[in-house]
Amino acid sequence: MSNLKNDRFLRALLKQPVDRTPVWMMRQAGRYLPEYRATREQAGSFLDLCKNTELACEVTMQPLRRYPMDAAILFSDILTIPDALGLGLYFEAGEGPRFHKTVRTEADLQGLNAFKAEDDLAYVMDAVKAIRSELNGSIPLIGFSGSPWTLATYMIEGGSSKDFARVKGMAYDQPELMHQLLALLADAVADYLSAQIRAGAQAVQIFDTWGGSLSAEAYKVFSLKYMQRIIAQLPKESDGRTVPVIVFTKNGGQWLSSIADCGAHCVGLDWTTDIGTARHQIGSKVALQGNMDPAILYASPKRIREEVATILESFGHGSGHVFNLGHGVTPGVDPDHVKAFVEAVVELSPAYHQAVSKA
Amino acid sequence: MSNLKNDRFLRALLKQPVDRTPVWMMRQAGRYLPEYRATREQAGSFLDLCKNTELACEVTMQPLRRYPMDAAILFSDILTIPDALGLGLYFEAGEGPRFHKTVRTEADLQGLNAFKAEDDLAYVMDAVKAIRSELNGSIPLIGFSGSPWTLATYMIEGGSSKDFARVKGMAYDQPELMHQLLALLADAVADYLSAQIRAGAQAVQIFDTWGGSLSAEAYKVFSLKYMQRIIAQLPKESDGRTVPVIVFTKNGGQWLSSIADCGAHCVGLDWTTDIGTARHQIGSKVALQGNMDPAILYASPKRIREEVATILESFGHGSGHVFNLGHGVTPGVDPDHVKAFVEAVVELSPAYHQAVSKA
Repeated sequence: MSNLKNDRFLRALLKQPVDRTPVWMMRQAGRYLPEYRATREQAGSFLDLCKNTELACEVTMQPLRRYPMDAAILFSDILTIPDALGLGLYFEAGEGPRFHKTVRTEADLQGLNAFKAEDDLAYVMDAVKAIRSELNGSIPLIGFSGSPWTLATYMIEGGSSKDFARVKGMAYDQPELMHQLLALLADAVADYLSAQIRAGAQAVQIFDTWGGSLSAEAYKVFSLKYMQRIIAQLPKESDGRTVPVIVFTKNGGQWLSSIADCGAHCVGLDWTTDIGTARHQIGSKVALQGNMDPAILYASPKRIREEVATILESFGHGSGHVFNLGHGVTPGVDPDHVKAFVEAVVELSPAYHQAVSKA
Repeated sequence: MSNLKNDRFLRALLKQPVDRTPVWMMRQAGRYLPEYRATREQAGSFLDLCKNTELACEVTMQPLRRYPMDAAILFSDILTIPDALGLGLYFEAGEGPRFHKTVRTEADLQGLNAFKAEDDLAYVMDAVKAIRSELNGSIPLIGFSGSPWTLATYMIEGGSSKDFARVKGMAYDQPELMHQLLALLADAVADYLSAQIRAGAQAVQIFDTWGGSLSAEAYKVFSLKYMQRIIAQLPKESDGRTVPVIVFTKNGGQWLSSIADCGAHCVGLDWTTDIGTARHQIGSKVALQGNMDPAILYASPKRIREEVATILESFGHGSGHVFNLGHGVTPGVDPDHVKAFVEAVVELSPAYHQAVSKA
């Protein structure tokens, strides 16, 4: 059993009683922080920063020095696996991620590198170990990966896409080839997350950024099924503790009851879903994570606090809620507004866990 | 009573019996057609094309010459009103719509031009009349407008936006100012759509492109409420026939039961919603329009036909369905694939309306 000083994040994911609602923020180590921008400049490219153990550890710790977060998240990119498979990830200013090679044929698929996470993404495992050591048992560390469908969209399109013409064209016209690719990716992600857990990650999140671009039926077949395949392969415990799995499908609010059955301990919600409705629908099966609109961080601290109060009230009493934004924090946000957000959760949430705080 | 040769579109919107499911396509007069690109080049800018009665009429007719569509839609832009209010609409290559001026303060709001659709957007009414004359009673003509929230996002941001920082900042921090702007826009849209109906539009659609970027609660307060305000002001009839109203909120699938209560005759669905589930939920109140993923048009004609069959089967028997894509057709689509799509609806849908076709 690890000696975590603050384990309310892990407890809430398993719906065990907590003294208050835990809170962290997707992309909490990010460009809205001036100290992040300084470290990023020192590192070189974004990928250089991911691959530099010391600096990746440094940016992971930065938000924790400012805010009483209940979890740290590994600093890395969702596209490390396609890079390791040989596609050559790079970033162009204002363009988002790009790949030198794409996967569009059977031959492209056969040409991918063999993949063993501990060897081929050793720099990620080094970062996990360094961060765990630096955290020194204060709060848990979250590992993560992109979902197979999300990785496939970038690998087939060669970068970001607005209409997903190629990846959907392949899914609909060559479903066998698409399923081969997705199976390969699911097993790679399972190996990758397992390696992160062995290196020290105490929970993992699968980011299904683009599953929400699919139709209801295609989502089940091309995205959810492969997240299920990953979860089935993950170690259930580490250090004698359950390693909870969070699945976050952006724009997946219409499919919550299917998602709740995929084996994850927690379902991430974006802000378009009413968290009270979601709890009513799937709260008996899984914990929920989310879901304040990141754009509310552009409003006043007073308004931010009101919105936190509304979401806490909507979820209601008891454990099973990890407070977060409904998507990553955006670069233009004032760090003081993030402070108002986190402090509001810390100050307002104990009232929803009184049975415990009175005990 | 107008003498429409083909009125199955209008009948389906009112859930009256039809011989087959009517079909049209959002953005059916668009860049995927070589003849559109030629006319566009001839016209000059996109806005020049909208303002040229003859050419706007020409591009409206182009898809009808190729495909047996059951409705025509006015060729125009969703941002004509903000342009007429004085913001100065222009288009930059690859950047989407932009405005020279923005609305961010009470003074900006006060500085907007007075607006009377028949005078200030006379070119739109001219296009409606010309298209009606050219259609000559063959199929009905749809008028349209952007929703108040959607217009407001462009007016406040000054163009397209990824995170809606400014518009949401105003909505959350200065709700009174936002409500003033939205009320002004709702009344302008109501005037605009009423003028289109007087000029000859036989149905109208409100495009709520960005309502789906809001939280569940904010959607009701900032978007849906103002569409309701518009619908309440529209003429109920024209030429002795009901003028049906279609509301389409992209990414609104989680809020269907609220949307079905807004007074519209038909709710547009994007492809992330299962149309069978939606019919079960709100089909007793409203007709449904949609909802094939436009990306399926990149797949083979065989696969397109299968998807049409799946959607028809999901909706099931009886009237109340207008077949469409779940969003606008994209520029890279092969016109022959659109043919496969429309023909599949024409050929496969009569089986779902047999009580009528046998009569």
